[in-house]
Amino acid sequence: MSDFNQLPAHVWPRNARREEDGVVTVAGVPLPDIVEEYGTPVFVIDEDDFRSRCRDMAAAFGGAQHVHYAGKAFLTQTVARWIDEEGLSLDVASHGEFQVALAAGFPPARVTAHGNNKGIDFLRACVRNAIGHVVIDSAQELELLDMVAAQEGYVQDVLVRVKPGIEAHTHEFIATAHEDQKFGFSLASSSAYRAAIAAVRAENLRLVGLHCHVGSQVFDAEGFSLAAERVLGLWSQLQRDLPPEAAADLTMLDLGGGYGVAYTEDQAPLDVVAVATELRAKVAESAAEFGLVAPELLVEPGRAIVASSMVTVYEVGTVKDVHVTDNVTRRYIAVDGGMSDNIRPALYQAEYDARLINRFSGDEDQPSPCVETRVVGSHCESGDILIDSAQLPADIAPGDLLALAATGAYCYPMSSRYNMFCRPPVVSVRNGRATLMVRRETIEDILALENY
Amino acid sequence: MSDFNQLPAHVWPRNARREEDGVVTVAGVPLPDIVEEYGTPVFVIDEDDFRSRCRDMAAAFGGAQHVHYAGKAFLTQTVARWIDEEGLSLDVASHGEFQVALAAGFPPARVTAHGNNKGIDFLRACVRNAIGHVVIDSAQELELLDMVAAQEGYVQDVLVRVKPGIEAHTHEFIATAHEDQKFGFSLASSSAYRAAIAAVRAENLRLVGLHCHVGSQVFDAEGFSLAAERVLGLWSQLQRDLPPEAAADLTMLDLGGGYGVAYTEDQAPLDVVAVATELRAKVAESAAEFGLVAPELLVEPGRAIVASSMVTVYEVGTVKDVHVTDNVTRRYIAVDGGMSDNIRPALYQAEYDARLINRFSGDEDQPSPCVETRVVGSHCESGDILIDSAQLPADIAPGDLLALAATGAYCYPMSSRYNMFCRPPVVSVRNGRATLMVRRETIEDILALENY
Repeated sequence: MSDFNQLPAHVWPRNARREEDGVVTVAGVPLPDIVEEYGTPVFVIDEDDFRSRCRDMAAAFGGAQHVHYAGKAFLTQTVARWIDEEGLSLDVASHGEFQVALAAGFPPARVTAHGNNKGIDFLRACVRNAIGHVVIDSAQELELLDMVAAQEGYVQDVLVRVKPGIEAHTHEFIATAHEDQKFGFSLASSSAYRAAIAAVRAENLRLVGLHCHVGSQVFDAEGFSLAAERVLGLWSQLQRDLPPEAAADLTMLDLGGGYGVAYTEDQAPLDVVAVATELRAKVAESAAEFGLVAPELLVEPGRAIVASSMVTVYEVGTVKDVHVTDNVTRRYIAVDGGMSDNIRPALYQAEYDARLINRFSGDEDQPSPCVETRVVGSHCESGDILIDSAQLPADIAPGDLLALAATGAYCYPMSSRYNMFCRPPVVSVRNGRATLMVRRETIEDILALENY
Repeated sequence: MSDFNQLPAHVWPRNARREEDGVVTVAGVPLPDIVEEYGTPVFVIDEDDFRSRCRDMAAAFGGAQHVHYAGKAFLTQTVARWIDEEGLSLDVASHGEFQVALAAGFPPARVTAHGNNKGIDFLRACVRNAIGHVVIDSAQELELLDMVAAQEGYVQDVLVRVKPGIEAHTHEFIATAHEDQKFGFSLASSSAYRAAIAAVRAENLRLVGLHCHVGSQVFDAEGFSLAAERVLGLWSQLQRDLPPEAAADLTMLDLGGGYGVAYTEDQAPLDVVAVATELRAKVAESAAEFGLVAPELLVEPGRAIVASSMVTVYEVGTVKDVHVTDNVTRRYIAVDGGMSDNIRPALYQAEYDARLINRFSGDEDQPSPCVETRVVGSHCESGDILIDSAQLPADIAPGDLLALAATGAYCYPMSSRYNMFCRPPVVSVRNGRATLMVRRETIEDILALENY
């Protein structure tokens, strides 16, 4: 590890700084001040970082209208308003996410509904609120949505979710004919083609696009490119086969999300601008080849926008040196949260970058020596690990404030009350001011579900 | 798989039956009636099953006073009252669990506090409420608790958590000198011995026992036995070395939990009676060998009491056949819950038994053929799998009610609001009556954390 007192800029929020007194500020707000007011653990989100990443995505893909924020990564009413103000569209993965968007006053016309098992209540809510698009995931859903739309006297715009046979995973991708997963319609078996035809034929649906998604936390741009190629193949086939008015409706190609972010100092985020440039060129080229007007390219970043905007601040509790073998010792640093507020290390073997935020480590003149360290939570489970192995300074002590960076995506949304831990608050910071976005849960919130 | 219409008795609640009309009842209550009233997904707990397993444990270990229910497996105020009525003690793993116990009116004198990183608030709550025992997990905590007890003018009974160098995992155990995990004090490095001596010397603590825990979901009784042997070694050493009055105080040997339960038809639960008999004999024998009065043997089952008491009922939504290779098809059955209400398959590759509960599968005369099936949830994630692979009847259809058995432990407690799913309710059943224990969460509960 390089200097522990540095904050790797590609992992930490854009407005995070270590000040001269050693304290870390985000957007000018000292993190220890936030702890003073809101306690630990606490999530802190850098609003301008979030907004700037929305703009970067919009610039890369030729306009905010082409970018759908994937709400499943982290969604609150406030975040929905930020997305709205930045001009992005919003993806919802459930009825609940749609309800949050509606509660925030997000324009339903700019919302797209996802899900492999949308219930009739969700579909009816989509139609009644004139949601922008529903991404059709199964033949069963196609019939159900057509029926619901008929009942409501409405024609619903839909995309068909295609399995292109590309599974992308971080630094590799697998190209196959078939995909053994629950989402979408297979290209290889022609079921995607048949679904598109069925959507065109359905009286109360209007097929406006095709959708695919290759994976999560992808660093190999080839996977996106090959998927685009395959879906463009279906799109051009449909352009040939469909009646002219239906072909003219089919104008959107949604290539999903999955843009990899850096969680640790030695990782580099995917170069989104390069990917965007390549994908846009490929779409234009393919369309020209077929003599067609190029479809609109849409993307659905979630993690790539919100992950690095947020940090989680914990207080260090028990520090314990454990003999691993007779000659090897590992330091266990326990913090006052854990798998309840961040299940990703346990669930996905995810890695994180941790730094002290209340002071410099080491002396003015020289850094503290480092020791092999495991950062664990306070849950009654030996697998409750936040950082499995890192060389951390030996001077981290009880009472210190330790922050994990890049906890914006899939941490708070997957948080639990395991061991009756109360969910931490989320505090947003901007221009030197901190604002409580989501309050901390209390034991009363937990008891209230039983004492109703 | 044997007859799909049978409910494997060692996996399902003791009072679950498939009635003549094909409907499954638990304690005389038809599960579809519960769905009618409370919706899906819904957790249903068989109160008499739960209580009977408390009694079985008490019988195996020579009295309810020797059994501590591990609240982390599943705890509500109602469950705390059941535990109290059955005469068991209660383990809490956090301040929050202790608060739930207190809210339920559970006698604090019968509560034991666990945790690798108990904060000062938790320790102070323990002392102020005269909690039965605190299990000391680190040298730091020993000092902190001694200080808190001094402040409160109280002498706190404590156990010292020992790492015996036994890690038990299902069908195997690893015996080593050292254990690379966060809990307790090592035997091999003498740090457990030193901690016990320090606890005796601390003015405001009284050392009454030693504690160890070998693992979770253990089926090999040898692991428990060897751990007991090692901890007994420390106990007898302390009996020799301590002043007589301190030696006389040291009367408890808590061997923790980990008793394996059956999640699927082909698994058999650990024979707890056999383990209890062996452990009790070993303790008596060891004590006799050293010429000492045998310590009291305590155990901490959680999963072994609650896992099989509960089932989760889902409604079947999308049913989709997916080509895995050109010749192989897998059926995907999506239900209206998933990793938000049961993270265990994704987190631990846990397996479950699923059955239709609204009707017989197949015709009167012959069973339905089976197909290779994956049961998935409704979350926007391809890893959202409840049952990875099973031969299930081909006649399972949308609208059917599918229940997973043995979901009592670590499902509800680890549940999240991922994708803004609202946590399911928990309904208890007894003597033909259903009672709502924990109500379903609503989107208003979620929004309330932001609109405070």
